[in-house]
Amino acid sequence: MHEFSLIEKYFTWANPPSDVAVAVGDDAAVLNIPKHTQLVTSVDTFIAGVHFPENTPPEAIGHKALAVNLSDLAAMGATPKWFTLALTMPEIDDAWLGDFSLGLKKIADQFDCFLIGGDTTRGNLSITIQVMGVIEQGKALLRSGAKAGDRLYLTGTIGDAAVGLATLLDNFSLAAEDKHYCQKRLNYPSPRLAQSQIIKRYATACMDVSDGLSQDLSHIINASNVGASIDFSKLPLSPSLQSLNHQDAVNYALTGGDDYELLFTIPADKEDAFLKEMKQKVTCVGIINDDFGNIRDQDQNQLSGTGYNHFNGK
Amino acid sequence: MHEFSLIEKYFTWANPPSDVAVAVGDDAAVLNIPKHTQLVTSVDTFIAGVHFPENTPPEAIGHKALAVNLSDLAAMGATPKWFTLALTMPEIDDAWLGDFSLGLKKIADQFDCFLIGGDTTRGNLSITIQVMGVIEQGKALLRSGAKAGDRLYLTGTIGDAAVGLATLLDNFSLAAEDKHYCQKRLNYPSPRLAQSQIIKRYATACMDVSDGLSQDLSHIINASNVGASIDFSKLPLSPSLQSLNHQDAVNYALTGGDDYELLFTIPADKEDAFLKEMKQKVTCVGIINDDFGNIRDQDQNQLSGTGYNHFNGK
Repeated sequence: MHEFSLIEKYFTWANPPSDVAVAVGDDAAVLNIPKHTQLVTSVDTFIAGVHFPENTPPEAIGHKALAVNLSDLAAMGATPKWFTLALTMPEIDDAWLGDFSLGLKKIADQFDCFLIGGDTTRGNLSITIQVMGVIEQGKALLRSGAKAGDRLYLTGTIGDAAVGLATLLDNFSLAAEDKHYCQKRLNYPSPRLAQSQIIKRYATACMDVSDGLSQDLSHIINASNVGASIDFSKLPLSPSLQSLNHQDAVNYALTGGDDYELLFTIPADKEDAFLKEMKQKVTCVGIINDDFGNIRDQDQNQLSGTGYNHFNGK
Repeated sequence: MHEFSLIEKYFTWANPPSDVAVAVGDDAAVLNIPKHTQLVTSVDTFIAGVHFPENTPPEAIGHKALAVNLSDLAAMGATPKWFTLALTMPEIDDAWLGDFSLGLKKIADQFDCFLIGGDTTRGNLSITIQVMGVIEQGKALLRSGAKAGDRLYLTGTIGDAAVGLATLLDNFSLAAEDKHYCQKRLNYPSPRLAQSQIIKRYATACMDVSDGLSQDLSHIINASNVGASIDFSKLPLSPSLQSLNHQDAVNYALTGGDDYELLFTIPADKEDAFLKEMKQKVTCVGIINDDFGNIRDQDQNQLSGTGYNHFNGK
């Protein structure tokens, strides 16, 4: 594999921003960190057959591999700056690379995140992206700040991607337009970076929902030493999910994963101001309480952090 | 795979340094960049059967995966700070993970480089490490600054690792102690970070030799718009390489790869001061000239950037 020419052809982007002092082509990249900011960084690996079906369109793979990393920055309240790409592929496939790099470039441009380096190797298809962003000194949104009484919020809707995956893998039956919508949500997640910039000025804790609301909420309550209750009737469900049996829809919403929505906690006395400023869809789904380590529903049934299937009494 | 407990058990290190504001366990790491420095970062993927023989000891894999990244920082003159680990493995193997993380931790401690995050997935064995370091504003050592008349230098000796690999893969015959030495050079490369801190105050260009002197020198001359001549009789060869037929030794030294020595250029008028300060082994192997794009030997034979095998007249 001609590693150098491959990187050059698809992954050397023109016009690096001024904060990139040295990009692709030297032993390492050199980057200017704005004054009074901290570096925020996250890495995720994406493997064919594990994180996405083998037949996922390459443009979607490029989009999603960066989107899930940008979602981690959104969860911290950070502003994206740069990323690296470590791409392992079985053979050089120009059509695949063209589509993959197109998907990657589109979302990178949308969120002003510039590719500053990478490594290309031969092997089973695997994509590791490390994203780097910045945040004002001391302002990062952690998982550990939730307090009893805080309102528990979600951006967007949840469960769509899990239903989209089910339609691909399990012949799950659904109207054509709902199938299309849910598969789009699976393949082209939207990192909630714009929402994050407002959330970070009000929230006490935040994370992105990647493994399902149930499991991810358990991370917040454990990190914050609190408990939570959720009202299932408040879960934000898209029209496509509302077309399902309600119990199934709730199940997908709680345990599905791949949502890349933000889950965050807002102090009660800041709720009005927050809602006034936040124009995009957010939904209060519950409340934080002192019942340490437990998540309960509106009927006080206990929900396990490992997922809806372990939910007592159902 | 219980991703969270796996990361926690082997890859959550105690006592993060004060420049790590948030380490493993949130959506992203948050890092304090020292004032008046730039961020320097590089990523490398390491795949079993491609970058190391399948039967390489896991401690060596852990060492080498970080060492090759640290070598990229050395090539820039940067000081290591942090790294992330994206580890893909076919199954959870406690013995393997114990040895791997030991090798990783040892070299990380040696060079004060702290693990701040990662991702663990199931698949064929593959390790992607992104290292981050810092350098004083504007002081990064690039490949592009070499000038005609500059002296071409190498740290250490070259060709050892390639001979080590040959003894493993090709039943290459060698005395036991030489075999041991060359395999150690292959499996446990030493990033030249200490040397780099002196080199960066004198050199006009620098890179690390990972693909063989011949190919890597071609990157410097192309980036700097110069040419170079090498005197083969000056190539720094270890006693183990000197025990080979001289032609074979030179061949390994020029095209072997996996050396992780620094190749750099020193202006003639700074050579004395540089050598006075540099206590570790460095060797002048040639000179930079105006013969753009060409590398020639002491007899004016042209050496192709793609390696010794394409060397004219041999």
